[in-house]
Amino acid sequence: MTDRQQGQQQDGEHRDRLARAVLTWIAEPGDVQLGNLLQQRPPEAVVASLISGTALVAAPAIPGLDRAWPRWAARLGDAPTAVTVEAWQRDGIRLVCPGDPEWPGQLDVLGDGRPWGLWVRGHVDLRFACLRSVSIVGTRAATAYGTHVTTELAAALAERGWTVVSGGAFGIDSQAHRGALAAEGVTVAVLPSGLDAPYPRGHHDLFEAIVAHGALVSEQPPGRTPTRPGFLVRNRLIAALSRGTVLVEAALRSGALNTARHARDQNRPLMAVPGPVTSMASAGCHLTIRDWGAVCVTDVHDVLASLTFSPGDLADPSRSPVLPRDELDPVSLSVLEAVPARGGRGPARIAVSAGVDFDTVMRCLGELAAGGFIERCERGWRVRRPS
Amino acid sequence: MTDRQQGQQQDGEHRDRLARAVLTWIAEPGDVQLGNLLQQRPPEAVVASLISGTALVAAPAIPGLDRAWPRWAARLGDAPTAVTVEAWQRDGIRLVCPGDPEWPGQLDVLGDGRPWGLWVRGHVDLRFACLRSVSIVGTRAATAYGTHVTTELAAALAERGWTVVSGGAFGIDSQAHRGALAAEGVTVAVLPSGLDAPYPRGHHDLFEAIVAHGALVSEQPPGRTPTRPGFLVRNRLIAALSRGTVLVEAALRSGALNTARHARDQNRPLMAVPGPVTSMASAGCHLTIRDWGAVCVTDVHDVLASLTFSPGDLADPSRSPVLPRDELDPVSLSVLEAVPARGGRGPARIAVSAGVDFDTVMRCLGELAAGGFIERCERGWRVRRPS
Repeated sequence: MTDRQQGQQQDGEHRDRLARAVLTWIAEPGDVQLGNLLQQRPPEAVVASLISGTALVAAPAIPGLDRAWPRWAARLGDAPTAVTVEAWQRDGIRLVCPGDPEWPGQLDVLGDGRPWGLWVRGHVDLRFACLRSVSIVGTRAATAYGTHVTTELAAALAERGWTVVSGGAFGIDSQAHRGALAAEGVTVAVLPSGLDAPYPRGHHDLFEAIVAHGALVSEQPPGRTPTRPGFLVRNRLIAALSRGTVLVEAALRSGALNTARHARDQNRPLMAVPGPVTSMASAGCHLTIRDWGAVCVTDVHDVLASLTFSPGDLADPSRSPVLPRDELDPVSLSVLEAVPARGGRGPARIAVSAGVDFDTVMRCLGELAAGGFIERCERGWRVRRPS
Repeated sequence: MTDRQQGQQQDGEHRDRLARAVLTWIAEPGDVQLGNLLQQRPPEAVVASLISGTALVAAPAIPGLDRAWPRWAARLGDAPTAVTVEAWQRDGIRLVCPGDPEWPGQLDVLGDGRPWGLWVRGHVDLRFACLRSVSIVGTRAATAYGTHVTTELAAALAERGWTVVSGGAFGIDSQAHRGALAAEGVTVAVLPSGLDAPYPRGHHDLFEAIVAHGALVSEQPPGRTPTRPGFLVRNRLIAALSRGTVLVEAALRSGALNTARHARDQNRPLMAVPGPVTSMASAGCHLTIRDWGAVCVTDVHDVLASLTFSPGDLADPSRSPVLPRDELDPVSLSVLEAVPARGGRGPARIAVSAGVDFDTVMRCLGELAAGGFIERCERGWRVRRPS
């Protein structure tokens, strides 16, 4: 490829990215007409027609497109420009697009409903972090029992190198993130708001910790506050990002049941933690076990067994790396080489040995664990033995 | 049939009954060789050969029969005679045999392992009581949670005219009986000991209440104390007598899991009540839900739905009578005729109206409810409406 060709390709990628940023602004996540349209037209062409005020050339026959088009156009006025997107990026908020190395390929399960782009804030690679991930979701009105079980389960998954995905909400969600962080694991929060003001505000400190050791993710651009339909649309992403979803405490009309339904509809393993039948907070869990085929899980072993023996994933995900070693970036590779095969070594010594700073070594260790390359042991970290 | 023929038939039935009483004495319940032998020889012929000390004519080729034979013969010395059996009967302990009107036909599911006879003590008809019955079993080491859930569930089933079957043990079993009695329902205890001294002795008062409003059942003749293998063999009867089995609290090595396994092996609906995953007393329940296909049930509605939609029983057992009305005995029929179709009437007024005493009316109401003819309502009892 000549320099000129390469330059043109970069220009093209740049325009595609900016168009997708604009689309996250003008259309609601999961907008059916736009999802349908993007199957047939590139984002750039859609945005160019909207800006020029012209109709799409040979517009495809999409029901409702005629009503959606002026709705999108009306929002163009304050849509982000290249300058805005660069400013957000300086604030640590990047846009991850389909085709990017960081794009989580498992989102393709969503078909037309695939996000046009994901706004991400955090120090891990989103695709890498979610390769070996489990969603833990549940009610905001968690009991002491649910809080306890969630924290223990999230920590146990994180200790085994699994990323914990949840929605950042009060109750079960936040305990899932906290449990993973307590075990120095990686956690991803999929939020219903723009990432400049992550919702709920009361979780400011939690979200900062997640940025440091994981990622915040949203389909909403910075500046957006959450809407009621936005919560439900967000839930499909929680299910789609992870290998399986665990429900811990959900009342019969809980939003967490919506996430569980998405997991079921996506044919991902759905699990639920039982509780006292006298507790309405567990009624949704028992419903999914009895009527939706959710697996009854009581601890981390049950969860891993359920993920392992799910259809289409017969290999044991808890044992084998999910990426070939030569796909690791150079920094991660140097950290991996500093991890001993036997005995174990602490993060500080690994950092010195790999020649990286402490924050970097913590991020890389989390990613390497999530990738199945290394595992935690009594004396720190060691290379994971093949099964 | 002439008087002489009728007399001969009665003699034959009498000899068959006495032979079966002897067999319950000389062989352990579930004895494989005897079960096998009784498929090919009548009880009378087996006992006659044992008494005369002769070998069976053309003895069938049954593995182990040669070792079992002298073991049975050795116990003949103090086996019950006609006089003993009559004395037991005067004490309220009757022998119910296959072919008797009171024999519960559902025990045929046990094949070779079908009891040669059941010792019964109590005021209800065993077959009638068990036509619409649910077993509730669980650990002796019940928690406050398990005790509460069991009592509520048993009472709710009894209120809807279902007989509660259990094993009379401490913990969950006894709460199942107590819950049914509290709702003035019918309950059946299948015991591992002879009925002259029901085990455990600490439940003397409970057993007397069960005799008054239900039945004690044992394969062991009077005089026998429970043995460890006897408990396990007894469990198959609990499962086989009822339409389905509900497990409420069982540790991973609980005897109640043995009953659950029998229910599963007999293709009867197996249900389990979930509990906190932090409670080892619920671990066995979660195991059966996760690995044995037990249905996760949280209340009486779940239990009835599970029984209703079980294979081979598509009719709704909670709605339609299980016996034709003309098979009712005259006393039950007169009580049924005294129950109003609308509004409801209390037991005392029904007793007066039917011309029977209060104990009789209570027994008949229990049986009629168990048979699906009547149902409890705010103002007493009324005829159950067809669905």
